[in-house]
Amino acid sequence: MKNIIFYKDLKSFSEKILTQSGLDSFSMESVSNGLCETSLRGVDSHGIRLLPHYVTSALSGRKNPNPIFSFKNKFPTIGILDADNAFGHAAGMKAIDYAIKISDEFGIGAVAVKNSSHPGALATMALSAARKGYMGLAFTHADSLMLTPNGQRPYLGTNPICLAVPRKEKEPFCLDMATSMISWNKLLSAKSANLKLDNNYAADKYGNITNDPAEATSLLPAGSYKGFGLSIMVEIFCSVFTGMAFGKHIPSMYKTPMDQQRRLGQFYMTIRADGCVDFEEFISSMQELTDEIRNEPPQKNEKIMVPNDPEILCEKERRKNGIPLDDETFLSLKELANKFNIELKTNLKSN
Amino acid sequence: MKNIIFYKDLKSFSEKILTQSGLDSFSMESVSNGLCETSLRGVDSHGIRLLPHYVTSALSGRKNPNPIFSFKNKFPTIGILDADNAFGHAAGMKAIDYAIKISDEFGIGAVAVKNSSHPGALATMALSAARKGYMGLAFTHADSLMLTPNGQRPYLGTNPICLAVPRKEKEPFCLDMATSMISWNKLLSAKSANLKLDNNYAADKYGNITNDPAEATSLLPAGSYKGFGLSIMVEIFCSVFTGMAFGKHIPSMYKTPMDQQRRLGQFYMTIRADGCVDFEEFISSMQELTDEIRNEPPQKNEKIMVPNDPEILCEKERRKNGIPLDDETFLSLKELANKFNIELKTNLKSN
Repeated sequence: MKNIIFYKDLKSFSEKILTQSGLDSFSMESVSNGLCETSLRGVDSHGIRLLPHYVTSALSGRKNPNPIFSFKNKFPTIGILDADNAFGHAAGMKAIDYAIKISDEFGIGAVAVKNSSHPGALATMALSAARKGYMGLAFTHADSLMLTPNGQRPYLGTNPICLAVPRKEKEPFCLDMATSMISWNKLLSAKSANLKLDNNYAADKYGNITNDPAEATSLLPAGSYKGFGLSIMVEIFCSVFTGMAFGKHIPSMYKTPMDQQRRLGQFYMTIRADGCVDFEEFISSMQELTDEIRNEPPQKNEKIMVPNDPEILCEKERRKNGIPLDDETFLSLKELANKFNIELKTNLKSN
Repeated sequence: MKNIIFYKDLKSFSEKILTQSGLDSFSMESVSNGLCETSLRGVDSHGIRLLPHYVTSALSGRKNPNPIFSFKNKFPTIGILDADNAFGHAAGMKAIDYAIKISDEFGIGAVAVKNSSHPGALATMALSAARKGYMGLAFTHADSLMLTPNGQRPYLGTNPICLAVPRKEKEPFCLDMATSMISWNKLLSAKSANLKLDNNYAADKYGNITNDPAEATSLLPAGSYKGFGLSIMVEIFCSVFTGMAFGKHIPSMYKTPMDQQRRLGQFYMTIRADGCVDFEEFISSMQELTDEIRNEPPQKNEKIMVPNDPEILCEKERRKNGIPLDDETFLSLKELANKFNIELKTNLKSN
């Protein structure tokens, strides 16, 4: 038996919890939308399981539930958003909206965020731009977790890259990837399930490759030194460019005391899809590219997908059948429900 | 014994050959600089070995040695450069210069190139921006060579990503990577040397992984579906955005008759390094990030490097001791020398 929750019930629950935790309405809506949409899309690592941690962040002082954003720009197309230690999602949504306004006039708009925190899945921000017809690019950095090639330990984070692009079909193209082979969360799942890891996923405390998740202290970059190079690229945009801390100077998400702010950077760019060709031509070509790849001859029993296809399929299924909650997440939401005296409407379903 | 050539002799030789092949002075200088600098930096696959192919391109009509570039922009920060089938290097250098001018005024400048050809190593263009103090981003697409995950054959090319960024030390940071694990050229080298490939490098005509370079017909993406997603990103900027052909519709570099134009797209973006913080702060932080990574504790007998470190070391060594030419390249340059009656000043050195 498994606990499931329907999207609208989860959304309403998280809205109430976040409001009672003191978040202003913009922060509340950004975080609630980000977490629930991400769970709907099947990216459970960055979905509603983060809610209890986020509530603690608001109550303990790590994150500012009522930020006063300030936006400045030295050049017409580059803005810097001081997020006043806002929730990462709130800072991200504010930034992408500024970027869209700039790109409307100039073609491209970039907004770097400073003094922010973990923005969850970057797809939330990039997709919101793509659904409005813009190409949306998003970067965020994170604390040390990726093994430095030839090194013994991690320096950079799993620094993700996200690009969302509109096409004819309703849901945009969306690539949202950590620059490590797998996420730490996937490693933890393997550990709980007593499974071995692939040989190119993780390393132990000496920097040697390990397939034992219990021994792992860092993650290997995707495509060896290539993922490492891409992680540096993200670090440059989020820290060197914004003036935020980098590498080993970034406070850990979980190990840092909850009353300390993390002062993370984020970077967003929106580009007019009709920058060179007409919008109609752009979305038609984008659809053609998508469909041609999907229709390439597959390996036996396999299906060819482009990035975001798995999430689109999952969203369709979960909208209909509900979002499954693993036991740990269910119990932690139940605890929040009791603490704030808010009903958590779940159902039990056979697996 | 090995043939070596000094940089200034190679530069002068290639200038004369390209001039006699009919290239105007801007095209000649762009191509000659691109190929010779790339050889100097040790990226032999994209260096002077391409000169004979490029000469044929000019003489046979594939590439236009005297292009009339036309530049248009619908929005202040996005330009489209119609390269009139110019050499890729010439189109790229023209585009990055336009991008720099735009970013000077607006903070960011993007220039998409249409009707162009193979631009060699993207580092040539991106580094030229970074040496002037800008962050330089460059993409180009290529004909089908990367295996589609779960598929039997390649659809996308090895579509490279390049970012160059200024720092305190003279040579910028530079990441220049194909989105496949290895280049086709590296595979061919393994084939010549009768060596087996790693298990994550290539696939055979059925899409099955092979470590036999003689059986390989496609290259695996770097980091599995992540490299594939990044390759789509590059394809979007170079084709969907510019209106050029994509995927299987791109004519092959070597298989297409040499009198046919390839009409490739390229995409360049320059960003002011002082977009948010002062330039001095930017280059200091960038240096600190570089040095901190280089000084991470290494594995025994290993050295930690950041992207471009190997090329910087190689350039230093080759400036002093000359650029080694493999036998095939040496013979093909010798042939050009005879054909055009131009002296090729090489030396023989013991290995």
